[in-house]
Amino acid sequence: MTTTIGFIGLGVMGGPMAANLVRAGFDVVGYNRSPAKVEPLVDAGGRRAGSAVEAAAGADVVITMLPDSPDVEAVLLGQASGEDARGDDAAGGGDDGDSAGVLAHLSPGATVIDMSTIRPDVARRLAEAGAQRGNRVLDAPVSGGERGAIDGVLSIMVGGDEHAFTSVKPILHAMGTTVVHVGPAGSGQTVKAANQLMVAGILEVVSEALVFLDAHGVDRERAVEVLSGGLAGNAILERKGAAMLEGNFAPGFRVDLHHKDLGIVTAAARETGVAIPVGALAATLVASLRAQGHGDLDHSALLLQVEQLSGRRANDV
Amino acid sequence: MTTTIGFIGLGVMGGPMAANLVRAGFDVVGYNRSPAKVEPLVDAGGRRAGSAVEAAAGADVVITMLPDSPDVEAVLLGQASGEDARGDDAAGGGDDGDSAGVLAHLSPGATVIDMSTIRPDVARRLAEAGAQRGNRVLDAPVSGGERGAIDGVLSIMVGGDEHAFTSVKPILHAMGTTVVHVGPAGSGQTVKAANQLMVAGILEVVSEALVFLDAHGVDRERAVEVLSGGLAGNAILERKGAAMLEGNFAPGFRVDLHHKDLGIVTAAARETGVAIPVGALAATLVASLRAQGHGDLDHSALLLQVEQLSGRRANDV
Repeated sequence: MTTTIGFIGLGVMGGPMAANLVRAGFDVVGYNRSPAKVEPLVDAGGRRAGSAVEAAAGADVVITMLPDSPDVEAVLLGQASGEDARGDDAAGGGDDGDSAGVLAHLSPGATVIDMSTIRPDVARRLAEAGAQRGNRVLDAPVSGGERGAIDGVLSIMVGGDEHAFTSVKPILHAMGTTVVHVGPAGSGQTVKAANQLMVAGILEVVSEALVFLDAHGVDRERAVEVLSGGLAGNAILERKGAAMLEGNFAPGFRVDLHHKDLGIVTAAARETGVAIPVGALAATLVASLRAQGHGDLDHSALLLQVEQLSGRRANDV
Repeated sequence: MTTTIGFIGLGVMGGPMAANLVRAGFDVVGYNRSPAKVEPLVDAGGRRAGSAVEAAAGADVVITMLPDSPDVEAVLLGQASGEDARGDDAAGGGDDGDSAGVLAHLSPGATVIDMSTIRPDVARRLAEAGAQRGNRVLDAPVSGGERGAIDGVLSIMVGGDEHAFTSVKPILHAMGTTVVHVGPAGSGQTVKAANQLMVAGILEVVSEALVFLDAHGVDRERAVEVLSGGLAGNAILERKGAAMLEGNFAPGFRVDLHHKDLGIVTAAARETGVAIPVGALAATLVASLRAQGHGDLDHSALLLQVEQLSGRRANDV
C-alpha cells in the first residue's frame, strides 16, 4: 500500500523536498499558507490540501518544513499554543477542534517529522506532546541548501525514537543522501545548531579570504581551485564560491533565516556555558548584515560586508 | 637524462615530499640542518649532501622547504642577507663565496622552487634576486598537511614566471594532485596566506561546534558523519575530526607554525586595509594557545582551548 505523506510548508526547501517524495512514489498531500506554492507539487503529481489539518488527516506520515519555532508550534499544537503559550507547557492544550492543530487530528500510529530548524527545547516539547497521544514526533532538520533539496542530496540529522526513525528512513532517503540518527528528541536540532554555527563561521572566513585575495590582485578563480583541494577546502567554497565571485547573492538561504538560527545557537551555547568566540562574532556579523537591510539576500552576502568594512564597496550597496 | 633535484629542508613536510620525488624517478640530493632527517631519504634511494650549497650545485631544480622567511633568505641569499639585512634590498649581497648562499652557486638555467610558507614580499624579493642571475625562483607553498605530503596529494599554489612553472610541473605533480599557477611572483604565498586564514577560522568553528555538541550530550561521531555531508562539510572535519574527538593532538602542523603564518596573514591584511574580523580573532586564539605552552601541539588543539574556556577542562592541561 502506498504511504500517504502530508507535507506542510512548501517554500524554497519544502517545495523541492515534497516533489522528490512524489518522484519516489509516495502519495503526497501538500499544504502551504500562500496557495501558489502548492502548484509545483500538484504539477509534479501531488495533491492539494486546504489546510494543515486536512493535509495531516489520514496521512501515515506528516512532514513540517516551516520557518521558525512558533510556526511549528502553531501548526502542530494549534494557534493558541504557538502564539500565546510559548515557553509554557503547551502540550496540554489543543483539544478544541480545528484550532487545536495537527497533533490532535493525526491517525493512530502516524509519525510526525519536523524538518524545520527550531529550538531544541521546543523539539523536545513537541515530541512529548506527540507521545501523550501515542504519536512519534521526530526532529529532522536538514543541511545542503536549496540545491541539496532540489537534487535530493540533503544531509538529514534526526533526533527522537529510534524505531520511528527506522520506519521513516526510506522517506528521508528520498530527500537526502546522508541520513543519520544522532540521539533522542531534540538532538537533531542540536546538531543542526552546530551546523549553522559552522556554516556562519566558514562563510565569514571564506568571505574574508576572497576579499584578501582580491586586494592582493590574485586570480581568484584559480585561487579557489587550489584552495578547494587543500586543508581549507569546504562545501561553501565548492557550492557557493563561483556565485560569490560573480556577486550573485540571490537566495538560497536567506540572511534572515540564518540570523534566526544563530539566535538558537547562541542561546543554546549560553545555557550550557560553551564558549563560541568565533561563532558569536559571526552571529554579530550576520545580525549587522541584516540590520543594514540585507535580510533577503543569500547568507553568502557576508562577502558584501567584508568588502564594505575594507573600503572596497560603498556603504549603501 | 634524469633531472637532478636538490632538496633543502627534510622536516615533517619536506621529508615525505622528497621521498615522493625519488619514487617518481628523480635524482634527489637532500640536505637538512639536523643530519638524522636525511636518513629516510637515503633509505628511499636519494643522496645526501653536506651543505645546502652542495645540494644545489649541479642540480637542475632546487627545492627549499623551510620554516620561515629568514630561513629561506639565509639559505638562498646567504647568512648576512637572511639575518642582518631583512627588510632591506638584500638582493645585491651574497657574492662572497660559500656564505653567499644557494643562489650564487646555481647552475645556469637552474630553477628554484621555494615551497616554504613565507612573506609574499620576501618571495617577490627572492624572485628578483634570482632573475638578476638569470635563474627563475618560484614561490610554491603547499596545503594538505603531513598526510597530504606522505600521500603525494598536496595542493600546490604557484607564483612566478609561467614558463618556469610549466617546465617544473611534472616535479610538482609528483608531490601534489592540485597544482595551480595563480599569478606572478608572491601570488603563491598570498594564496597560501588566504589558506591559513581559512584553516584557522574553520579549525576554531569546528572546535566550538564539537564542544557545543558534547555539552548537549549528542553522539559526536554520528554528528560528525552527518555534518560532513552538508553545507558545513570541510576538509578539517574530514581529516582531523576523528583525532580531535580522540584528543590526539600530535602534529601534524604545529601551533607555532600556524602562529607564524597568521602573522603573515594579519600583516598582509593590514597593509591592504582588508578587514578580517574572524581571521584576526582566530589569530588571537592561536597566539593564546601558544602562549599557554601548546606551541608543539597540532593546530587542532584549538579544541583544548574551547574546552578550557567552557570550563570543561582544567587550565593546566
